[in-house]
Amino acid sequence: MPSPSPSVLISEVGPRDGLQSVARTMPTADKLAWISALHAAGLREIEVCSFVPAKHLPQMADATEVVRHALTLPGLTVMALVPNLRGAEAALAAGVHKLTLPVSASEAHSLANVRMTRAQMVDEVRRVVALRNERAPHVKVEVGLSTAFGCTIQGVVPEDEVVRLAAQVIEAGADDAGLSDTTGYANPAQVRRLFQRVRAEIGAHAGAAHLHNTRGLGLANCLAAFDVGVRSFDSSLGGLGGCPYAPGASGNVVTEDLVFMFEAMGIATGIDIERLLAARAPLQAGLPGEALYGMLPEAGLPKGFAPGATYG
Amino acid sequence: MPSPSPSVLISEVGPRDGLQSVARTMPTADKLAWISALHAAGLREIEVCSFVPAKHLPQMADATEVVRHALTLPGLTVMALVPNLRGAEAALAAGVHKLTLPVSASEAHSLANVRMTRAQMVDEVRRVVALRNERAPHVKVEVGLSTAFGCTIQGVVPEDEVVRLAAQVIEAGADDAGLSDTTGYANPAQVRRLFQRVRAEIGAHAGAAHLHNTRGLGLANCLAAFDVGVRSFDSSLGGLGGCPYAPGASGNVVTEDLVFMFEAMGIATGIDIERLLAARAPLQAGLPGEALYGMLPEAGLPKGFAPGATYG
Repeated sequence: MPSPSPSVLISEVGPRDGLQSVARTMPTADKLAWISALHAAGLREIEVCSFVPAKHLPQMADATEVVRHALTLPGLTVMALVPNLRGAEAALAAGVHKLTLPVSASEAHSLANVRMTRAQMVDEVRRVVALRNERAPHVKVEVGLSTAFGCTIQGVVPEDEVVRLAAQVIEAGADDAGLSDTTGYANPAQVRRLFQRVRAEIGAHAGAAHLHNTRGLGLANCLAAFDVGVRSFDSSLGGLGGCPYAPGASGNVVTEDLVFMFEAMGIATGIDIERLLAARAPLQAGLPGEALYGMLPEAGLPKGFAPGATYG
Repeated sequence: MPSPSPSVLISEVGPRDGLQSVARTMPTADKLAWISALHAAGLREIEVCSFVPAKHLPQMADATEVVRHALTLPGLTVMALVPNLRGAEAALAAGVHKLTLPVSASEAHSLANVRMTRAQMVDEVRRVVALRNERAPHVKVEVGLSTAFGCTIQGVVPEDEVVRLAAQVIEAGADDAGLSDTTGYANPAQVRRLFQRVRAEIGAHAGAAHLHNTRGLGLANCLAAFDVGVRSFDSSLGGLGGCPYAPGASGNVVTEDLVFMFEAMGIATGIDIERLLAARAPLQAGLPGEALYGMLPEAGLPKGFAPGATYG
C-alpha cells in the first residue's frame, strides 16, 4: 500500500513531454485512460498537456478535453505547459491547477527555441503572473529553467546566470523555479551545487528537478538532488519522449525506475509500483508499437521487496 | 589528458566477468588486443581471467596466456578470479598480482552456487591466504562478498551477516573485502549504510564496490558508495556480461558511463574517455555482433566537456 504521506512528489510529464515528442497523436480516449491509470497508481501531479497552437503541435489539440477529464480525478494537481501568455490564457480558461512555463537558462537556446531573449521571457513570466492574479489567483505558476546544466548550442551555461535567472523569475512573481537538464549534460556534483546555490538565492521557491537520462546519469542526478533537499521530481512513464540512447532524444528519467529507487530507499512516493507498471498498458494501447524504456519493468521487483521500507 | 593521480580506481572486469557470461569464446589474440586497448585508455587494474577447469568454462582456457600478456603492460595490476585453492595455485603459478575470491553473503546462494557453506568458504580463504604467504607474499587477496545486497533465492540478506562475514574473511587473512550486488537489488541508502558498517568493522580493509545496473540504479549506487568513502569500483566495458534489461543477466555497470560520471564530477579516474570508447572496437572485433551497452557511447560527450574538471 502506498504511504499516506509521501516524502517526495513525483510529477509525471509523459502525457505532455512524452506525447509531444512522439510524431503520432494518441487518441483522446486513450490519453484519458492513461491519465486515469497514472492517477490510480498514486500519482498526484501530472503535466497533462501543453497549450500551444494545434497547427504546431497537433498531438496537443485536445488539451482542453484532457484537462476537463483530469480535473475529475480526486486529489490530482492538473498541470499544463504554456509557452507564453496566450497559452496561459487558454490553460486558465480550461481550469488547470498549475502552469509550467519554460525559460531557457542559455541565451543561445532561448533565441533559437523561442526567438526571445531571457529578459524577454522574464517579462512574459510577469505577464502570465499578472493574468493569473487577475483570473485565477489560486493557480500556481512554475518556471522550469531549461538548459540549466548545459546547452547543445553554447556548451557551458554559467551557474551565476542560472542563479540570477531563478531570482528574476521569482521576482517576476512565479511561485517556484525548477532546474531542467534539457540536454542530459548534468552530473551529480553540478546538480548538488546548483540546487544549493538556487536555494540559497530563492529559498523555498526552489522547485522541481527535471533530469534526463541521456548519458545514463538520470537516477544518480535525482539522488544528488534529493541529497540537497529537492523533494519534487519530474519523470515520464516508460521514459516516453524519445529513445534515451539516441542523440538529441529527450531521455526523460523513467518514472518506474525513479519510484523504485525512492521506495527501495525507504522514501515514500505515495505510488503503488504494481499499479504504476500496470499504467504502461494503456500507454501502449494508445501508441501501439512505441518503444518504452525502464529497467525495473524488465527485471521486476527484488525478491522480498517491501515498498516504502528500506530493503535489507 | 588523464590526470596523473586518480582519485578513484576503476577496476575493469569485462575480460573475466563479461567474457565468462558470453557463450562464445573470444579468440586469445583478440583478448590480448582488447586488454592492451583498455590499458592504453588508462585502466590500471583489470580482472583478466578466472582460473577454473576448462571443461566448466572453455572461455577461460587460455588464462595463463592472457596473464602472461597482461604482465607486460606497465603499471597494470593483473587480477584473476579464483573460486578455490586449486584456482589460486594456478593463478599464482601464472604470476598474477592479485587474486579475487567470491564468497556468498547469502547462505542459500553459497550452497546453490558452490555447494559450500559460508563457513567452509571462509576456511577456503584461509587456505588460499596460506598458499599466497608461502608462494607469493606480495600478491594481494581480495574477497568479493557476493549477494551482499540481496539474493534471488533467499531474498533479504541480513546486514549483520554481511558485516560479520567481512570480519571473518579479513580475520582469515584476506587483504580486503568488497561488496557485490550480484543480483542488482541494491539501493543507494543500503549501499551507504552497508559500506559504512563494513568500514566501521574492518576499516581500511573495506574494498571495492561491485554494483550492477539490473534495475537502473547502477550509477546512483556507485555515487552512494563514493559518498561514504569507497574509492574502488568494478565495471565492465560496454556492460559486457549480459543484457542489463534481461532478468538474471549480469548487468554490470558500464565502464564508459561510470568514468564519464566521475570525470564530469571532477573526480579523476586516470582514464582517457576517447581512448576508452576506442577500446570497444577490439572488444567488438573479438565478439562480432555481441550486444554492447552504455549511454555515453550513444550520446557522446557534452559540448564543452572538460574531463577531470567539474562541468559548468
